[in-house]
Amino acid sequence: MKPSQIKRRRSTTLQEIFARNVLLHRIRLGLTQEELADKSDYHRTYIGSVERAERNITLATIEAFSVVFNVEPHTLLVDTND
Amino acid sequence: MKPSQIKRRRSTTLQEIFARNVLLHRIRLGLTQEELADKSDYHRTYIGSVERAERNITLATIEAFSVVFNVEPHTLLVDTND
Repeated sequence: MKPSQIKRRRSTTLQEIFARNVLLHRIRLGLTQEELADKSDYHRTYIGSVERAERNITLATIEAFSVVFNVEPHTLLVDTND
Repeated sequence: MKPSQIKRRRSTTLQEIFARNVLLHRIRLGLTQEELADKSDYHRTYIGSVERAERNITLATIEAFSVVFNVEPHTLLVDTND
């Protein structure tokens, strides 16, 4: 097996699950990263880094996004790609 | 309404929900804070502060506890007190 395949096959991390859910909800609401930044009081570059799964974000951040998306906080950690 | 009542009536924060779920799983497994500390590689005093809802913990911490408790990470953010 090539290293690239191993990388693709490893289990999805919680950062990646959260990143995908933020992206999916943003698209669902028809928001740009800039607009989500405005609504959530984070900077646009921060939204970008969250969606690239680069951030080990906190409960406060989960709560802030759940308010903007109008969903229960825990749903943002559900792996919808199962 | 007295301030104490207002305080009791405010909605449960995500830190409080996580705190309660960690406590419930620890008790379910019959672990002391010390034993959970050993299993999760956190310090006993840190476990105590998490269970007192004093910590704005990160995705990595949610993941670490979910492994010890053998549950899906998102379940640790579900408010079971609804």
